Amino acid sequence: MDFAGVLSVMGADLRRVEDRLRDETRVNYPFIGEILTELIAAGGKRLRPLLLLLAARPFDYELEQLLPAAAGVELLHTASLIHDDTIDHAELRRGRPTLNSRISTETVILFGDYIFARAAMLAAATMNPRVVGVFASTLGEICDGQLQEIFTTRQLEQSRDDYLRRIFGKTAALFAGSAEMGAILGQAAPDAVDALRRFGGDVGMAFQIIDDVLDLRENTAHLGKPSGLDLRQGTITLPTMMFVEQADGDGRELARRVIDGRASDREHEELVRAIRASDALSDALRVAECYVAGAHAALEPIPDGESRRMLAALADHSLRRTH
Amino acid sequence: MDFAGVLSVMGADLRRVEDRLRDETRVNYPFIGEILTELIAAGGKRLRPLLLLLAARPFDYELEQLLPAAAGVELLHTASLIHDDTIDHAELRRGRPTLNSRISTETVILFGDYIFARAAMLAAATMNPRVVGVFASTLGEICDGQLQEIFTTRQLEQSRDDYLRRIFGKTAALFAGSAEMGAILGQAAPDAVDALRRFGGDVGMAFQIIDDVLDLRENTAHLGKPSGLDLRQGTITLPTMMFVEQADGDGRELARRVIDGRASDREHEELVRAIRASDALSDALRVAECYVAGAHAALEPIPDGESRRMLAALADHSLRRTH
Repeated sequence: MDFAGVLSVMGADLRRVEDRLRDETRVNYPFIGEILTELIAAGGKRLRPLLLLLAARPFDYELEQLLPAAAGVELLHTASLIHDDTIDHAELRRGRPTLNSRISTETVILFGDYIFARAAMLAAATMNPRVVGVFASTLGEICDGQLQEIFTTRQLEQSRDDYLRRIFGKTAALFAGSAEMGAILGQAAPDAVDALRRFGGDVGMAFQIIDDVLDLRENTAHLGKPSGLDLRQGTITLPTMMFVEQADGDGRELARRVIDGRASDREHEELVRAIRASDALSDALRVAECYVAGAHAALEPIPDGESRRMLAALADHSLRRTH
Repeated sequence: MDFAGVLSVMGADLRRVEDRLRDETRVNYPFIGEILTELIAAGGKRLRPLLLLLAARPFDYELEQLLPAAAGVELLHTASLIHDDTIDHAELRRGRPTLNSRISTETVILFGDYIFARAAMLAAATMNPRVVGVFASTLGEICDGQLQEIFTTRQLEQSRDDYLRRIFGKTAALFAGSAEMGAILGQAAPDAVDALRRFGGDVGMAFQIIDDVLDLRENTAHLGKPSGLDLRQGTITLPTMMFVEQADGDGRELARRVIDGRASDREHEELVRAIRASDALSDALRVAECYVAGAHAALEPIPDGESRRMLAALADHSLRRTH
């Protein structure tokens, strides 16, 4: 089965998630409601809710109990993007102006908090204390990853472990948590819950590494945000680390200048070209492939059947994304 | 019984809350751990945890289950102060420099998020879905109050209901939620849970009105932050509303200039003096007294005994605070 097949099988359930998300836009403030509607409409492919639904599906689940959790992980994702864009002073996301570029930072902070609160209410609506526990610790891991990103900014000397830990928090934690919440709500046995959490984490790691590759490989028009933005912000990603490991003295010096924020736009473009010309992007892709292989292996204790095939297709899809 | 008596009876339990809060400072980042230790040590009288403990006490409670909830409401309070100071660009709180004046806004936003996450994990640790639900909706109410504050800034024409709704979210919601969580964990009957929620809300309303009176009545050295800060920030509080209702044309014009941010420091001081000389502060105090009377009335369905007397003393204490 391919990813289009997954979306076709899961279409009806995903539309229910969409309805639930739309319910969340009915708030007291017309202004907030409008922005929320827009943010939710601009959202991506609902990968996190999909993962949550798929993780419950091999087991004994009730869709009605999954829906608030599925909407909750999507809103948690939305809230973390809002604070992330505020922190990065980002002006574009998915080709549209960020909230941050349109309303005051103060309002954006609170708006993010408010969406966190709505997400937490959705998690609480499952009435399952373990799910709420996973939700809360996932939020902690996301903050941890974002704090790591701040503390390691412009530090070219960080280790690959620093990078992996950082992207686990930033991205993979919510994939891991979504799969774990789904499995718990499906009343899966403990080893299956662990396996699905590992699966989600591996898919999330691959997803973020691909994101970091795309940031360097694709052009601005394709990305909907400036190409090579991570470098500009001093965020060291795996392809950059791999480039620096292989580069000669000139290449390393150029990377250092760009990462330090001392470089001109021309030098920035030169570095992007040098990384593209090196083996760094394909080497980073290989690391992502290893995570996807790990995700497949994690599925071993899950009952064979359509759901497991869909999970496998979701894992493969993370490698094929181009946006 | 007076408030000192309450603290003496509850001292041992409050020390357990303190231990639990200290556990929360053991985090991966020495830097974050230090700041958290400092913030927790600088904290106030732990009124919210105390209220939570007292609300459970007339019923059938287990201290071990109350402790994470009690620490959770204090951390939620801490997190909301951090984002609040960021939003206000406040430089002082309780006579000490705010986080905001020492580290970057970006880090402060995330740091606040991180403490929200820790607070949510503590709520989840009660393993009680209703408690988690109250926790999450309280967070929503707090955000609501803070958004209201932003949207009504510098608007002299707002109604008293606008003010009351705003301070309910900003302050009273967490008092109401703390009492409700305690009552739920004490397995109180539904009418007692409702009564204690109302009690907490009324105490919180009185508490915030007194805070707004103190902001105008006391001097900078006493407050540990600039006197009349609300006016400077364009936040309309009850005493200011009451002053404007009673003032002549000159007084109203002065208030408008200050609230609009068009006034000099001298005019600001002149307005503070005019408010002090008017009946506004004592009229506002009378409103706070009404809330405390409401709080006493709410205690009616609670079994008579030491716990109820301590709750009553806590309500009275909110009127007597001078900081």
